[in-house]
Amino acid sequence: MSENYERFMQKFAELADIDHAQALLSWDQETYMPAKGTAMRARSQGTLAGISHERLTHPDFVALVEYLKGLDLTGDQAVNVREIDRAQSRALKIPKDLIVELRQTESLSHEAWVAARKKADFATFAPWLKKILGLQKQVAHLVGFEGSVYNAFLDEYEPHARAEEIAPLFAQLRQRLVPLVEGIAATGKRPATGILDGEFPLEAQEAFGRQIMAAMGFDLEAGRLDIAVHPFCQGLSPDDVRLTTRYSVDKLAEALFGTMHETGHGLYEQGLPQAEGGTPLCQSISLGIHESQSRLWENMIGRSRPFWQHYLPQLQAYFPEQLAGVELDSFYAAINQVETSFIRVEADEVTYNLHILLRFELEMDMVEERVQVEDLPAVWNERMEEYLGVCPADDAQGVLQDVHWSFGLLGYFPTYTLGNLYAAQFFARAQEDMPGLMEQVAEGELAPLKRWLNENIHARGRRSTAGELVQEVTGEALSAEYFIDYLEGKFKPLYSL
Amino acid sequence: MSENYERFMQKFAELADIDHAQALLSWDQETYMPAKGTAMRARSQGTLAGISHERLTHPDFVALVEYLKGLDLTGDQAVNVREIDRAQSRALKIPKDLIVELRQTESLSHEAWVAARKKADFATFAPWLKKILGLQKQVAHLVGFEGSVYNAFLDEYEPHARAEEIAPLFAQLRQRLVPLVEGIAATGKRPATGILDGEFPLEAQEAFGRQIMAAMGFDLEAGRLDIAVHPFCQGLSPDDVRLTTRYSVDKLAEALFGTMHETGHGLYEQGLPQAEGGTPLCQSISLGIHESQSRLWENMIGRSRPFWQHYLPQLQAYFPEQLAGVELDSFYAAINQVETSFIRVEADEVTYNLHILLRFELEMDMVEERVQVEDLPAVWNERMEEYLGVCPADDAQGVLQDVHWSFGLLGYFPTYTLGNLYAAQFFARAQEDMPGLMEQVAEGELAPLKRWLNENIHARGRRSTAGELVQEVTGEALSAEYFIDYLEGKFKPLYSL
Repeated sequence: MSENYERFMQKFAELADIDHAQALLSWDQETYMPAKGTAMRARSQGTLAGISHERLTHPDFVALVEYLKGLDLTGDQAVNVREIDRAQSRALKIPKDLIVELRQTESLSHEAWVAARKKADFATFAPWLKKILGLQKQVAHLVGFEGSVYNAFLDEYEPHARAEEIAPLFAQLRQRLVPLVEGIAATGKRPATGILDGEFPLEAQEAFGRQIMAAMGFDLEAGRLDIAVHPFCQGLSPDDVRLTTRYSVDKLAEALFGTMHETGHGLYEQGLPQAEGGTPLCQSISLGIHESQSRLWENMIGRSRPFWQHYLPQLQAYFPEQLAGVELDSFYAAINQVETSFIRVEADEVTYNLHILLRFELEMDMVEERVQVEDLPAVWNERMEEYLGVCPADDAQGVLQDVHWSFGLLGYFPTYTLGNLYAAQFFARAQEDMPGLMEQVAEGELAPLKRWLNENIHARGRRSTAGELVQEVTGEALSAEYFIDYLEGKFKPLYSL
Repeated sequence: MSENYERFMQKFAELADIDHAQALLSWDQETYMPAKGTAMRARSQGTLAGISHERLTHPDFVALVEYLKGLDLTGDQAVNVREIDRAQSRALKIPKDLIVELRQTESLSHEAWVAARKKADFATFAPWLKKILGLQKQVAHLVGFEGSVYNAFLDEYEPHARAEEIAPLFAQLRQRLVPLVEGIAATGKRPATGILDGEFPLEAQEAFGRQIMAAMGFDLEAGRLDIAVHPFCQGLSPDDVRLTTRYSVDKLAEALFGTMHETGHGLYEQGLPQAEGGTPLCQSISLGIHESQSRLWENMIGRSRPFWQHYLPQLQAYFPEQLAGVELDSFYAAINQVETSFIRVEADEVTYNLHILLRFELEMDMVEERVQVEDLPAVWNERMEEYLGVCPADDAQGVLQDVHWSFGLLGYFPTYTLGNLYAAQFFARAQEDMPGLMEQVAEGELAPLKRWLNENIHARGRRSTAGELVQEVTGEALSAEYFIDYLEGKFKPLYSL
């Protein structure tokens, strides 16, 4: 057995090594690759993906995994075999022709989306979305699912999640969020946000961001921070985690919270189990759990009053003129302005989730054929009115705003809100475990929280599913209550509700 | 036939795609990779190298190449099959175990070299060099060779070159260089080089370097310039060529000529045939030809008087205080100071080649067992005295100064001097083809030379061997005369000889 297991780990290590190269090719493409490098880069990525698929589904490797599954493995060995079996089964079920057709369609569909958005004309994108939806449903039926067909979509980003379990959580969230948003709007209160929109030299923005990264415990010997148009975090290994951010000279909040967000992702990647470097369990659990780490740091810490109690004077030292005389409470109010808007990526902490709920419901309706693709713009606008009280002027501000569907990423949106729910539940538990946590934050000490996340979440790797992890760490199943309580506890006082 | 040839090209394209990823992994390691990323990077590189070897030597691919070789292919098809056959035959002849042992030995040997150099103690490195030499000779005998066993070593860096042809060229060079160096020394003339050692802010150095890159015609949409401790040029494809340089605030010449040198390499990579992107013939011919491109730009242009006629005032605009009142002739003299020294990488244009000749002769002597590894330091010092009139104080200044042997790179050194010979012969031809060339350079116009190199050298890719290329471009075989004439024509007047 041991020899077979070793052979299995050897095979996996090769796949991880190919992944490593693919991750670097992606990172480089978004950071340093010169413009003309695109074509060759796409070819190289395609070839490596093909080699990876070929090796994952090689009959010898499949037989090896079958054999190991038949043994009564326990502990980490069982996890490693389970995870490879999962990836292998999926890969074996989708014929190569379908993958190729899907990739080609996605590429063309993305072009069509860019053009359609430019003209704010959903009709020209509709046929592509239909085609993608059809192909993705084929994949879903080949891969298989229980309950809603949507579960097959979801499973790719949030393994083992089920629409039947998410839907009630999201419904509960909506029920409490809509009145909160309405209540806030009704106060007519609008914090002065002008202090965030002065002229902030990029070097100082970067220096302050790096100071916060360091305080959060990100190891720059095992990672980097660079600039990208669409910021992201790419872990090449726990020892090599690449963060990106973007700076706008006239928008202080953008890079500030963007950097904290990506550092949250980065701490997860750096905190993954090292001793097991390059095994399947040395990986993040799901997009939702990943997002919980970024949101916790960005919002629950980065947009908290205690955090700025310590860091506002430091920020003012970087921008002595721009932030002269700014009071803690006005700053805290400014970075927590709630305002309904059309665009998801510009939304605040409270309204953000309504944007996601709308997308989740529409995706479910599309996939289960309750809404036809042609009717999406009308349904979109209707629900925007219902949830957020605003109606987009055109499709560009509405149904065409996100890139996701153009790339076939159906089932991805819910992981953003799941991330918020996980974050709030973890954060509540962390505060229970460490009663003085926010007092420490108020003194600029972020290490205790980082350590707690390392021990309770990061170091577990992929041993548990997301659902199991929440149960293990917090002692109960995922609930929307913690996030709602967090939002109400923060925003009701802020808006004197 | 056509279908088989297409299958062959498809197989090759995959190898090129893996190469692309490997090249990026290397580039990143020398530029942006965080310190702790080393272990995983080495693993990934190893796995990709293994996959590449596996695919190159796959029996189906071998049979395909065998079949195509049997056909009477002509033109580019014949070149492509010839080049893959060459790589494949070599790969097939070396058992995997030997490769693994060699790689491991190189890694350990490199560590031993670092320690030995620190203590200036060759004796602790000697056993490693012996072992590497033994393994490399095994490789040489497996790969096969005609004439000297050294040809097998040489062939890896300078395909089809033969020691029997190089030796007389180098001997002739030595015969003429030694008296030139002695003559220069005897004049007692030493140009004032202090003007190059002021304080030169890095930003201005970089800005001027980039201006020269642009004037040389390097396309920054298809390449980059970054910083590395040991500058290099890495072509990922003609559309993505990565240059590196290094800046010292107190050494103006270092980055200046370093950047021109690497840009020379970069123009070759960008100029390789594009229509055939990713075929074997879309590659550089040899290290020597590559080096000819960098040396031509760095020395024959960058260290020429006409070049600075145009660019000195521009350089002075970047450093108005540091270079105030510097005359063209003093500047020209300063950048062309000839001085015998112990260290190859610090040597000037004239003495540099004596450093190489010494290494070439020693390598021949080692490989053909006329000199024992233990005796290297003594022989080294003796010949330094003979060729350059100086004797190193210790092994660190002598036989241990270069990294090459520690990595098993035997047969590499001669390509540096071959590069100089090729460069001079090409440069003479270019001036014949374009009689006003240096007048154009004196007006800052570098495009005509770049175009000539593009057409006559770069665009030919790997269709010819280095020897054939020289014959085709210049109408005669490689000769040392052009380089000697160039050096004498330049340095005799400079030193009033």
